[in-house]
Amino acid sequence: MEKLKATKVGKANPESYSRIRVKDVEIGEGHFTVTAGPCALESVEQALATARAVEQAGARIFRGSIFKPRTSPYSFQGLGREGVDLFRLVQQETHLLVETEVLDPRHIEWVAEHVDLLRVGSRNMDNFELLKEVGRTDLPVILKRNMSATYEEFLLAAEYILAEGNENVILCERGIRTFETYTRNTLDLLAVPAIKELSHLPIIVDPSHGSGRRSFVASASRAALAAGADGLLVEVHPEPEHARSDGFQSLSLPEFEHLMNELRRLAAVLDKKM
Amino acid sequence: MEKLKATKVGKANPESYSRIRVKDVEIGEGHFTVTAGPCALESVEQALATARAVEQAGARIFRGSIFKPRTSPYSFQGLGREGVDLFRLVQQETHLLVETEVLDPRHIEWVAEHVDLLRVGSRNMDNFELLKEVGRTDLPVILKRNMSATYEEFLLAAEYILAEGNENVILCERGIRTFETYTRNTLDLLAVPAIKELSHLPIIVDPSHGSGRRSFVASASRAALAAGADGLLVEVHPEPEHARSDGFQSLSLPEFEHLMNELRRLAAVLDKKM
Amino acid sequence: MEKLKATKVGKANPESYSRIRVKDVEIGEGHFTVTAGPCALESVEQALATARAVEQAGARIFRGSIFKPRTSPYSFQGLGREGVDLFRLVQQETHLLVETEVLDPRHIEWVAEHVDLLRVGSRNMDNFELLKEVGRTDLPVILKRNMSATYEEFLLAAEYILAEGNENVILCERGIRTFETYTRNTLDLLAVPAIKELSHLPIIVDPSHGSGRRSFVASASRAALAAGADGLLVEVHPEPEHARSDGFQSLSLPEFEHLMNELRRLAAVLDKKM
Amino acid sequence: MEKLKATKVGKANPESYSRIRVKDVEIGEGHFTVTAGPCALESVEQALATARAVEQAGARIFRGSIFKPRTSPYSFQGLGREGVDLFRLVQQETHLLVETEVLDPRHIEWVAEHVDLLRVGSRNMDNFELLKEVGRTDLPVILKRNMSATYEEFLLAAEYILAEGNENVILCERGIRTFETYTRNTLDLLAVPAIKELSHLPIIVDPSHGSGRRSFVASASRAALAAGADGLLVEVHPEPEHARSDGFQSLSLPEFEHLMNELRRLAAVLDKKM
Repeated sequence: MEKLKATKVGKANPESYSRIRVKDVEIGEGHFTVTAGPCALESVEQALATARAVEQAGARIFRGSIFKPRTSPYSFQGLGREGVDLFRLVQQETHLLVETEVLDPRHIEWVAEHVDLLRVGSRNMDNFELLKEVGRTDLPVILKRNMSATYEEFLLAAEYILAEGNENVILCERGIRTFETYTRNTLDLLAVPAIKELSHLPIIVDPSHGSGRRSFVASASRAALAAGADGLLVEVHPEPEHARSDGFQSLSLPEFEHLMNELRRLAAVLDKKM
Repeated sequence: MEKLKATKVGKANPESYSRIRVKDVEIGEGHFTVTAGPCALESVEQALATARAVEQAGARIFRGSIFKPRTSPYSFQGLGREGVDLFRLVQQETHLLVETEVLDPRHIEWVAEHVDLLRVGSRNMDNFELLKEVGRTDLPVILKRNMSATYEEFLLAAEYILAEGNENVILCERGIRTFETYTRNTLDLLAVPAIKELSHLPIIVDPSHGSGRRSFVASASRAALAAGADGLLVEVHPEPEHARSDGFQSLSLPEFEHLMNELRRLAAVLDKKM
Repeated sequence: MEKLKATKVGKANPESYSRIRVKDVEIGEGHFTVTAGPCALESVEQALATARAVEQAGARIFRGSIFKPRTSPYSFQGLGREGVDLFRLVQQETHLLVETEVLDPRHIEWVAEHVDLLRVGSRNMDNFELLKEVGRTDLPVILKRNMSATYEEFLLAAEYILAEGNENVILCERGIRTFETYTRNTLDLLAVPAIKELSHLPIIVDPSHGSGRRSFVASASRAALAAGADGLLVEVHPEPEHARSDGFQSLSLPEFEHLMNELRRLAAVLDKKM
Repeated sequence: MEKLKATKVGKANPESYSRIRVKDVEIGEGHFTVTAGPCALESVEQALATARAVEQAGARIFRGSIFKPRTSPYSFQGLGREGVDLFRLVQQETHLLVETEVLDPRHIEWVAEHVDLLRVGSRNMDNFELLKEVGRTDLPVILKRNMSATYEEFLLAAEYILAEGNENVILCERGIRTFETYTRNTLDLLAVPAIKELSHLPIIVDPSHGSGRRSFVASASRAALAAGADGLLVEVHPEPEHARSDGFQSLSLPEFEHLMNELRRLAAVLDKKM
């Protein structure tokens, strides 16, 4: 961990933890903040139905991508620029904050005008030009771990953002690539205590990509909370079986509500506000 | 998962879960059974001090190896046959059940006379001659996942034991080998819901090998319980800094007691008996 | 390999192999084309000394990065825009073609005016916006495999370039991330027959990143040629011990010359033109 | 590589390489010794047809297992004790040496009477009781790398054999487990220069398990030779499509003959006797 010395992501002392405040939402030690929504935005109906349901269930931030980095160029790539109006709609109809993924340094300035947080996906964790650009905005950034990144590389990617002056970075563990194929990725929950030992930044967990199977999301979410994570990034869809991407790992609205009730009981025992 | 069809480890129906009873201890759905003790047995004092403390804290089974498979032939290999008296001592002085690792098919019959459960370690998960021999005993067997075994391979290794007539197998997730080096292994907690989806056998978690760092054991243990595991296999030592093996990942007696208190609060919320 | 169906990277028939011609240099079946040069360009002296020596030894393409994606933002990031004059110098002083890495979609048009081939590095294999932009140029592109990409993902990344109309893609295997730490990466030489089975595109090998150790580069290079690769991408530096990046895996000028002599003898037996 | 200090597998000096002589066959630097035969022995006809053909093509050692460690207990487990007569038959009808796999410490003494070399398979690389027993015989041992073993662990497993007094160990790289699923394993050919840098022991390569695909075996074999390996361990079967195990990765007799001709041409250039 030699390269972490004298970085901004490193810790001043063992008990230093940053808390990030976005409007009335707090992220960091002592809180368990849930971000939920569809993998990709698809329509007004899908966005609003999901947003209302996740707000009702206790989520504080709405996730929804309009640009999707897909393995194949022939898969659905997201609504693109036209999807941006859906963010405003969700902000008007709910009290949720809104986050979305950015892929291209040329889009950031424009996207940043329409959302409350930016997300950098796993595939772009090493896209340092993109990291520098989000570092020049004043929006909080959710940075997802690349599926083959070590903790040190993960933190140094965050450092690219902090080095530009933006200190509001929320790290997100989302599973690493291993030989096991029954799960889409191997969710590395010990990333939670590891990051908290090495850095003051908050860390949340994506149980949807982390497992790649709807039936494992609840188990992964409870475990993330118990491991000490500061929140979740969960995929939820009104009709998972008809989702245009990642339906197999998205919770339905009632499944999400049930999970949130479970998590609240656990959070109470673990002294986490939710 | 083609090879799991028509096996004894597979499930008759989604809700079929085996419960294993050893004397007055139950392992399986609805229970959270903690096995704890030193990596290797070293002396009467070390064995008894640990046994008394872990019983006091709520563990039900005492772990302790007398044969240690070590990477180097020049590392401490365990007390060997002379260590066997320590099992009787622990059984006399506490109400704990006792388990230990077997390495050699020629030792099994003899070892089986002195303990309540047998353990097959990760390195021997593919040692099918050993599995067949423990399958011919009538003792319950804790079978640890090899660090590069898929879930299917793990379950088929258990099938070697069941196929010989011994149906009392307790699976144990203990971390898999990945590129991350900050942790000794990557603890794969989604093995818990995966195994419960694929098999009726109980599954416990080893947070000590799974993390390889004392400071992560509590986080890993809470997460295992929340993920749905049926118990733990934890390394505990009266003086971790002087342990002859694995001290860096062993809890001290007070650390273990503190962890057990945390786990009891969580177990209550999760409807697990402890 | 479902997603490879109906792609441009797929094969029309088992014996279809594309050959890419850049000026008087051919890359593809029947040829073994060596690209060599420093990891990062550092100065006029370093660039010219290396270029002359690698040309003399038989390389046909000069590699040299002016933008370096580094794990830490505080490591040397390359000469940047000022380095571009060095490309012209090498083109004037030798008959070598020149290639360089692009990191940012906003740089591509400008960089493309100064070099003969573009390179997309491992860290950007999933940066699809970058891939689309290089797909819109008319320069051949060397696309390096991400350290955690499957063959299918690697080929689908190339498809992003072909889908934009640029069919001159040269794939480059450079090692994948595994648990082994003695080598920087695990060079996956079976990627060579695999890619040739699945695609018509040429594939070269980077023995420098693939091993991460100078002492292994010759062995890796010979093996790549024998495995059927269409060329190499090798790091060479006049003074490896003083290189500003990757010196530990760069060959000195005499080491490179010695390697090329070895390779020529092998190529003759393997019916490869060099 | 701390643990390799003061071991018998380590090197006295950079140029120390052991050569192992078994009857008239030499294995080690300067030689390229091919071991070939079926995965599992099945019948007199299969054994003799294969033995005669591989001898004719230039192999020096015949491989054939009578005990097979299979993932599932319901897969073909080998002919067992009855297969032992086939070894004598091959020895009578050809000049080949004969090797076979041992799985159980209780079989070793008996098996050792019937073959010229013993093999310890990947799954048993960490079966230290087995290693100690083969270390007490006077037969050379082919020790295969476990699919998740580091170079250091591989060499320390060999040390268990040398420490018992048997110094005739031949290491065998056979692929490691990674995320790539198109190949059965990822053949790690840089294990060859790595082992030669760290140890004086010979190292051969298994291109059959290393690739898991018949169509890649020739490419893998040529690359192994070019990388500096001291030989091969190849699966060959008179009718691969009807083999009782591993047919998909076994060469037919004509394919093997063709490969050996290719290898001889390469060996001549590389100064290896074959």
